Amino acid sequence: MKVKKNLTDWLSGQKEAIDRLLEERLPTENDLAAGIHEAMRYSVFAGGKRLRPLLVLECCRACGGDPAGAADAACAIECVHTYSLIHDDLPAMDDDELRRGKPTSHKVFGEAIAILAGDALLTFAFELLTSEGSARSARLAGELAKAAGTMGMIGGQVLDITEEPREEPGDRVRSIHRMKTAALLRCACRMGAICAGSLEEKLEALTSYGLNLGLAFQIVDDILDVTSTPEELGKATQKDLAAGKLTYPGVFGTDQAALEARKHVETAIESLVVFGTEADNLRALAGYVADRKN
Amino acid sequence: MKVKKNLTDWLSGQKEAIDRLLEERLPTENDLAAGIHEAMRYSVFAGGKRLRPLLVLECCRACGGDPAGAADAACAIECVHTYSLIHDDLPAMDDDELRRGKPTSHKVFGEAIAILAGDALLTFAFELLTSEGSARSARLAGELAKAAGTMGMIGGQVLDITEEPREEPGDRVRSIHRMKTAALLRCACRMGAICAGSLEEKLEALTSYGLNLGLAFQIVDDILDVTSTPEELGKATQKDLAAGKLTYPGVFGTDQAALEARKHVETAIESLVVFGTEADNLRALAGYVADRKN
Repeated sequence: MKVKKNLTDWLSGQKEAIDRLLEERLPTENDLAAGIHEAMRYSVFAGGKRLRPLLVLECCRACGGDPAGAADAACAIECVHTYSLIHDDLPAMDDDELRRGKPTSHKVFGEAIAILAGDALLTFAFELLTSEGSARSARLAGELAKAAGTMGMIGGQVLDITEEPREEPGDRVRSIHRMKTAALLRCACRMGAICAGSLEEKLEALTSYGLNLGLAFQIVDDILDVTSTPEELGKATQKDLAAGKLTYPGVFGTDQAALEARKHVETAIESLVVFGTEADNLRALAGYVADRKN
Repeated sequence: MKVKKNLTDWLSGQKEAIDRLLEERLPTENDLAAGIHEAMRYSVFAGGKRLRPLLVLECCRACGGDPAGAADAACAIECVHTYSLIHDDLPAMDDDELRRGKPTSHKVFGEAIAILAGDALLTFAFELLTSEGSARSARLAGELAKAAGTMGMIGGQVLDITEEPREEPGDRVRSIHRMKTAALLRCACRMGAICAGSLEEKLEALTSYGLNLGLAFQIVDDILDVTSTPEELGKATQKDLAAGKLTYPGVFGTDQAALEARKHVETAIESLVVFGTEADNLRALAGYVADRKN
């Protein structure tokens, strides 16, 4: 119980620190084209968990790097995550009116500005990442582009919204989870390691950690969609079922889904065997992902 | 007349060569998530003029570089241009059904896939640009992100679709043109120079060339929207007027607009004074932009 309380306090402190990093970097509403900057900020500061930037910073720290040198990468991946939420929520996609307990971007700013705000956050992520102009920043941008592209996040979203009856549902939902969610969490971990200058062994370990954490995260997401109320989640629930989407509990049952999530969390933690206590925060984060209630 | 014929032949040969570069680089329809790759290719190969990639290659050549080393940059900027067209055509934006004489992406693939295809092309541009993993590629990606972002192309699009009655229409239409169109053409020229390793004088000259060419290009675009038929342009015409958008001919009259376009073309050509005959193709391109009929 004490550990849990400590973890919650630590997460909340990290979230505030990451919010400050984002605050310093995002263009302000006072600049030219103020409307779009307002929309970008609205969604970025709508209250996410900041899991992806936290993974960047913690993986950098675990590899012996200074997290300050990973701040741009941390903010860039949160911009990409936020853009994906804005576009996913659009009427032509999942048509969601509520996200993190607040009206979605297109409900507040209209569809055109919501589309452009998503585009702008994706573009800004690469501006942030490459501002240093180094070979390392090119590598980081390449990692992010691949993870966010058609063989990663966008590809997963496409699979999620299109029907492909030939494929076996279990295989398909695994592909969707791997691409739609795990690719970006895996990328966050890799970016942190790359920021610390870690290649080879530690990079490989964090790649496996991030992938398994991401798979666990999405399975838990699917379970929460079935078992929670909209008030608990801050967004509409039972949406996947209503939209006829493939989910882990839908395909395997809730109990089996929970077991698989737990298995991925264990694999994630086992991947960290090459690290000592410097990876304890990452171990705690894996437990948090499995047990979270929203 | 002979020069014109030669220019047309040369442009057509260049277009074919650029199409081959794009063909080699874009993910194929056979890959995973085939539907999205099909949509990306549909819009990229719908028959653009390839002006932006041509500027990258020619500016690289004019600076003494090997255009082969600028091929990724050339393809990346065409991907960004194509993404912007797909998103601009969406029902929530300009709601266009026809582009380059063909049905727009959302008419063929539906809105969700059109949004994702645009996202994917933007993301792929940065994957292409950073694949080399060098400091130069980080610089190129930074240039493109800034030009395509809220202080460039996206910002111009926002100004174009939002009302801001306080601003003087002439100033406003100039800002829109500079951001919406000229920023990306300016960027194409800068990327070409950077690929050739040119900094300082030649980079500055090509920056001015690209900016003025871009301004001329958009003024001519506005004029063609008023004076052409849909058959000539391959898209709906008189759209700007119907949408109540600010245009150069709308604010200044068609004659004055044509004069300003000509003035920008002259300035563009004057910017090339630091170059010898190696920039003759760029000079010819400036004339083409002013005189084009579609």
